Amino acid sequence: MTTSETTTHTYPLDAWQIVEDRFDLESNVLDETIFAQANGYIGLRGAHEEGFDLPPGRSIDGAFLNGFFEAEPIVYPETAYGFARTKQFMLNVPNAKRITLEFDGERFALTTGEIKAYTRTLDLRTGLVTRAIDWVSPRGHRVTIHSRRLVSLSRKHVFAVQYAVTSVDFTGTVRLTSTIEGRVKNIEAGDDPRVGSTITAPPLVLQAIEAGDAVQALTHRTRNSGFSLVSAISHAVTGGRTPRHAILQDSEAQRVGLVVEAELHRGETITLTKVGAYVTSRDVPVEALSARAQTEVVSARSVGFDHLAGEQAERLAAFWADADIAVDGDEALQQGIRFNLFHLLQSVGRDGRTNIAAKGLTGEGYEGHYFWDTEIYIFPVFLFTQPEIARRLLEYRYSILPFARQRARQMGHPSGALFPWRTIAGEECSAYFPAGSAQYHINADIAYAIKLYDEVSGDSSFLREAGAEIVMDTARIWLGLGRFVDRLGGQFGIFEVTGPDEYTACVNNNFYTNAMAQMHLAFAADVAERLERDHPEDFARIAAALDLGLDEPMRWREAAQRMYLPVDEALGIHPQDDSFLDKPVWDFAGTPRGHYPLLLHYHPLVIYRHRVLKQADVVLALMLLSDKFTLAQKKRDYDYYEPLTTHDSSLSSCIYSIIGSEIGYHDQAYAFFLETARMDLDNKHGNTPFGAHLAAMAGAWLSLVYGFGGLRSQSGQLRFAPYLPGHWTHYRFSVRAQDRRLDVNVDASGVTYRLRSGATLTLMHHDRSVTLTAEQPEQFIAD
Amino acid sequence: MTTSETTTHTYPLDAWQIVEDRFDLESNVLDETIFAQANGYIGLRGAHEEGFDLPPGRSIDGAFLNGFFEAEPIVYPETAYGFARTKQFMLNVPNAKRITLEFDGERFALTTGEIKAYTRTLDLRTGLVTRAIDWVSPRGHRVTIHSRRLVSLSRKHVFAVQYAVTSVDFTGTVRLTSTIEGRVKNIEAGDDPRVGSTITAPPLVLQAIEAGDAVQALTHRTRNSGFSLVSAISHAVTGGRTPRHAILQDSEAQRVGLVVEAELHRGETITLTKVGAYVTSRDVPVEALSARAQTEVVSARSVGFDHLAGEQAERLAAFWADADIAVDGDEALQQGIRFNLFHLLQSVGRDGRTNIAAKGLTGEGYEGHYFWDTEIYIFPVFLFTQPEIARRLLEYRYSILPFARQRARQMGHPSGALFPWRTIAGEECSAYFPAGSAQYHINADIAYAIKLYDEVSGDSSFLREAGAEIVMDTARIWLGLGRFVDRLGGQFGIFEVTGPDEYTACVNNNFYTNAMAQMHLAFAADVAERLERDHPEDFARIAAALDLGLDEPMRWREAAQRMYLPVDEALGIHPQDDSFLDKPVWDFAGTPRGHYPLLLHYHPLVIYRHRVLKQADVVLALMLLSDKFTLAQKKRDYDYYEPLTTHDSSLSSCIYSIIGSEIGYHDQAYAFFLETARMDLDNKHGNTPFGAHLAAMAGAWLSLVYGFGGLRSQSGQLRFAPYLPGHWTHYRFSVRAQDRRLDVNVDASGVTYRLRSGATLTLMHHDRSVTLTAEQPEQFIAD
Repeated sequence: MTTSETTTHTYPLDAWQIVEDRFDLESNVLDETIFAQANGYIGLRGAHEEGFDLPPGRSIDGAFLNGFFEAEPIVYPETAYGFARTKQFMLNVPNAKRITLEFDGERFALTTGEIKAYTRTLDLRTGLVTRAIDWVSPRGHRVTIHSRRLVSLSRKHVFAVQYAVTSVDFTGTVRLTSTIEGRVKNIEAGDDPRVGSTITAPPLVLQAIEAGDAVQALTHRTRNSGFSLVSAISHAVTGGRTPRHAILQDSEAQRVGLVVEAELHRGETITLTKVGAYVTSRDVPVEALSARAQTEVVSARSVGFDHLAGEQAERLAAFWADADIAVDGDEALQQGIRFNLFHLLQSVGRDGRTNIAAKGLTGEGYEGHYFWDTEIYIFPVFLFTQPEIARRLLEYRYSILPFARQRARQMGHPSGALFPWRTIAGEECSAYFPAGSAQYHINADIAYAIKLYDEVSGDSSFLREAGAEIVMDTARIWLGLGRFVDRLGGQFGIFEVTGPDEYTACVNNNFYTNAMAQMHLAFAADVAERLERDHPEDFARIAAALDLGLDEPMRWREAAQRMYLPVDEALGIHPQDDSFLDKPVWDFAGTPRGHYPLLLHYHPLVIYRHRVLKQADVVLALMLLSDKFTLAQKKRDYDYYEPLTTHDSSLSSCIYSIIGSEIGYHDQAYAFFLETARMDLDNKHGNTPFGAHLAAMAGAWLSLVYGFGGLRSQSGQLRFAPYLPGHWTHYRFSVRAQDRRLDVNVDASGVTYRLRSGATLTLMHHDRSVTLTAEQPEQFIAD
Repeated sequence: MTTSETTTHTYPLDAWQIVEDRFDLESNVLDETIFAQANGYIGLRGAHEEGFDLPPGRSIDGAFLNGFFEAEPIVYPETAYGFARTKQFMLNVPNAKRITLEFDGERFALTTGEIKAYTRTLDLRTGLVTRAIDWVSPRGHRVTIHSRRLVSLSRKHVFAVQYAVTSVDFTGTVRLTSTIEGRVKNIEAGDDPRVGSTITAPPLVLQAIEAGDAVQALTHRTRNSGFSLVSAISHAVTGGRTPRHAILQDSEAQRVGLVVEAELHRGETITLTKVGAYVTSRDVPVEALSARAQTEVVSARSVGFDHLAGEQAERLAAFWADADIAVDGDEALQQGIRFNLFHLLQSVGRDGRTNIAAKGLTGEGYEGHYFWDTEIYIFPVFLFTQPEIARRLLEYRYSILPFARQRARQMGHPSGALFPWRTIAGEECSAYFPAGSAQYHINADIAYAIKLYDEVSGDSSFLREAGAEIVMDTARIWLGLGRFVDRLGGQFGIFEVTGPDEYTACVNNNFYTNAMAQMHLAFAADVAERLERDHPEDFARIAAALDLGLDEPMRWREAAQRMYLPVDEALGIHPQDDSFLDKPVWDFAGTPRGHYPLLLHYHPLVIYRHRVLKQADVVLALMLLSDKFTLAQKKRDYDYYEPLTTHDSSLSSCIYSIIGSEIGYHDQAYAFFLETARMDLDNKHGNTPFGAHLAAMAGAWLSLVYGFGGLRSQSGQLRFAPYLPGHWTHYRFSVRAQDRRLDVNVDASGVTYRLRSGATLTLMHHDRSVTLTAEQPEQFIAD
């Protein structure tokens, strides 16, 4: 699907809900992303339970398990040494939510008969998707269907559907068929890497069918990756006259489940509660899988749907207490921001062995891979609202450190660790190195997140337990990528890397990379020093594990101190790389609107040889390393680079919004914020049907909290510089830091800081120090 | 097969022959390349007719037709706009040379029984491969087999085998089975692009079998490219008692042919003459294919093998009269040089629609693609020895100009033509653009060859008929690749290109590219001016066809005049590109011998970020644009770049040899010459089994004539600077130029120039003018 074919769809404005008030075939595939539900492990696209036979492209159903994947060899038409050999892609697992409905043999479908009323609601406080349908069948029978669905935030392996059918004027036999459908496929990606993967053989092989009275289950094994998966369901039925149950089993169709028939009279209701579980050998020993799945569904069924819904609301209440952002004066934005935060919570892995995919658990785009999006865009949101989850994201990186070491060896580094540009389980899966493995900055991005966690979270254990080892082993790579260059007066240059901007590739002295490497090297040296001083046993253990040379931290320090960070004197800006300023400027005036994104309309060589950006590059460094640059420098760089930026990447607008806020370009900042705040709700990039843009969702939070709120961590001290954007009357956000909870209220009169919990806190309001205590938790600062 | 597994094999030294004096299973696959025969159209690997069942890897039989290929989609694991979509690969066509031999049911094979005597000889003057075998069968029967094979240089579609069997002590039934074998396959290339292609479906589909008494034939059609091919054979048999013939036909095995049985007594001989032809719809209308094949084989059979052999010797005598190089004092080199020239003649396409593949017609390496190797390495050899063939090579480029225009559009150029980096029929087939499509210098390389042809050949028609159109349309591309750069004082810079050295990719202001673009732009402007002045109708026609803007030639001139050609003042050298001198020098000392070629042991990013060369880059420009540089400059560049060059490319040594000769580094020049002169005969790169290195073969000629002989064309005037290398006592080479034939004899006493034919010629001997006339055709210049 290309941009131009995609339908946009606007949902009515509501502060806490996404409501669909009519069934629309055109937007169905988009709705499936918007109404997707997930719990950081299971992700279910918002397809209707009934699986109406829809025309091609109108539905992309899917169920995903974070970190559960199939592997295939990557075949290159012209290969070379060290190219990534194996791709990993998030699997579409069996569809366990399927429920079909018949009345005297007439099957319910929204595509037939007459829809008298239809609403579907995603409630961001309860986490439930609720659907109410009033329908007249082609033969003229009228019924209502009320269903509720949740993917449990409290029970990693569990989801549930409550499905109630009420007769309005029908008398006869109603039949509900609730199954697991094992014959599912991933989508065919074609040529757009943003859509999904291309798969050669069916990845799931059926191993066993369990067709018990209480629990039905399918066991599959992945063909290449060798993982086992049990999908299980269990049911409860109430209502209906003379209900009959039968267990359905069809190994050819890879289908198992329950068939319920009952007589229904006018005004009567039959309710099916279905509980499903997915358990895989990535989490549970293979011999225990079946029992575990059984336990999960039986336990969840026995507590009942209402209980599960209660758990869900409770978990979400806690989340919103920490993470909510309130905006008065723009309901569309209010809705967009909460929708984004909700999806971030839904998609983030929190077991320390999984992460958050580019499209979360909402679709197959980018094959379910984890990128730097996590550390640079998403991690700060969790760090400042759910630091426990932020730590889990870093633990994931520690879990794949052995793969990063292997990769460093493949890439010619005798020591050190090099994180993959994209991966699920840790191996490099990037099949186009100029915009993949060449982005060595991933190492610095991860170190940056560890540094930020260390400064902000108040948790000092992570650095000792895992962080220091990551930071030091990854810092080593820089010395292999660069050297002290005589022609640059002995400064340290870094060669043949790609920065964040993917419209320039394999350059020398990419400003972002050099600046972030400097931060990384200095931090690694600091960490070594601190650890050796404060925790000599930890240092000794890690140094031994890394076979750390005595002089290495000193050499990191030296490279950091002498890092080449050029300024173009004539323009007063930071050149993006050594040759960027020499290249011809892209012919923006001569580029038709339909030729964006450029990557779909021009050969990489054409793009690479021009002065044009896909996304923030220098400007991103200005944000991350805020202290290092003056406001005047930031303004000059912004002024220079923004007109050269296509924002073809969804990672771009939020960064320009933040720096725009900082340098006083409030209108532009607001416009860029609008781009991110409702990117998926309004399908602005045209490809939300293939999954939500999780980093851009986080970018909306960043635009608001870092941008409008001016939040920065200055070596752990929080600094704010809030202003009231646009036509807003008020906004409020919350921040957790160093075991404190802080609310920041901004309105036309000024800013109120309130310490909600925790010890005395001194923060900076612009350049003014503000201290909040348990006794005096609140301070108002007039504008 | 990797380098280390390959056997080298040394053939006895002989000035005009390659002789194999024992059958060696180890070297068989190498011998198949060495004894390959071809006529510029048909290529037959030197496999034995009998097709002994050899262990895997011991034989790669093959028959190839220049320009005949199958196409397949190129599938990228991560694709992008403008990537080459279709690969073309030279097909292994049906094996029509197969002859098997049985004695009372006992099959002859060199791998069984006892070999009493064995010789196989490739005679470079007759063009025949002659084999003489004295063999005792496992049951003790002794026979001799004498066979001769040729691929006719006078009959494009024809090859022939004469196969004589004589009984020494055998009395019984001898059976000869002569077939076309249609079930052939291309080899499996695996990961080494230098080996061949990877093919998904059998490319040849059998259409018809003809099993006539006089002629047997198979008709195939290629699955995707849609070409038709007829392979036909016809036979004559003499000798033997009571001979019986039968026609063999097996459509399942795709086999057709003749079976001859006869009684043989002690001392008696039976002789089978087999004539084969290949005709395809690339040359002949599809409806006429079968008749044409029939005519070809019947005609060739009727004249007889001796007549065909006579034609062959005659054609070769003419070739050697123009092209021979005689060296006294080193028989190994003498053999190597003639072997190389012979293979060049064998492999070069001469119908104006085909070219010369990287491996010629000797193997499947590089998929039978044509590269810049033609224009820069091979073309000069033909230009100076067989200019008619040189013209055909340029006509081939003209024939694919429409594809070059299409490719330019795909690469974002609104006008102009961009030749493919590698192709058979004209479409870009390079699946790794950093070392493929990014080598824009191919356009200048072709323009260079046209310029040289125009200066040297004496044929002024080509430029008007085709050359000018190529030169002007390809010149346009440079203006789209670069711009006048303020920061370079308004000089013209060229961005994001790869030069000849493939260990550096996608750089700015590659010296070779800029220098060659300058030559190209200036030449294009000259051509426009000359044509407009001297042939206004031709100019008008071409300008209309190109939709040439009035100011375009002026803009070419301006870009040429202001081309950026940097010199590093400190080092006094030409930097290979803008960033080359900044990068760290490759750790040569720390690189084990087995890690060469680097491309098989290091990721491209590792190689690209270091100061290391695969092959001559700046130094190649010094040779091609010899006039532009002083001897001192050449020496400095050579001194700087040679120690950084791995010579991992077979295209490297000869260039360093030539410049080494010029700057007086005669020992190094000689050593590099040795690398190329016997590269394939001694299998120096380890991969000759997959095909000969045609460009390196030409490089040996260049090393000798351009290097030792000092030949350069200075705007068409020949300039020589001969010296006597090493321990040689004498050498002689010949040159054709401007309808003259010139012999150059060099010995210890001096140089003799002899005008063999043609009008008065003034040449330069170093900086001294020498005039040869019909009356005084010879001059000796003492050393």
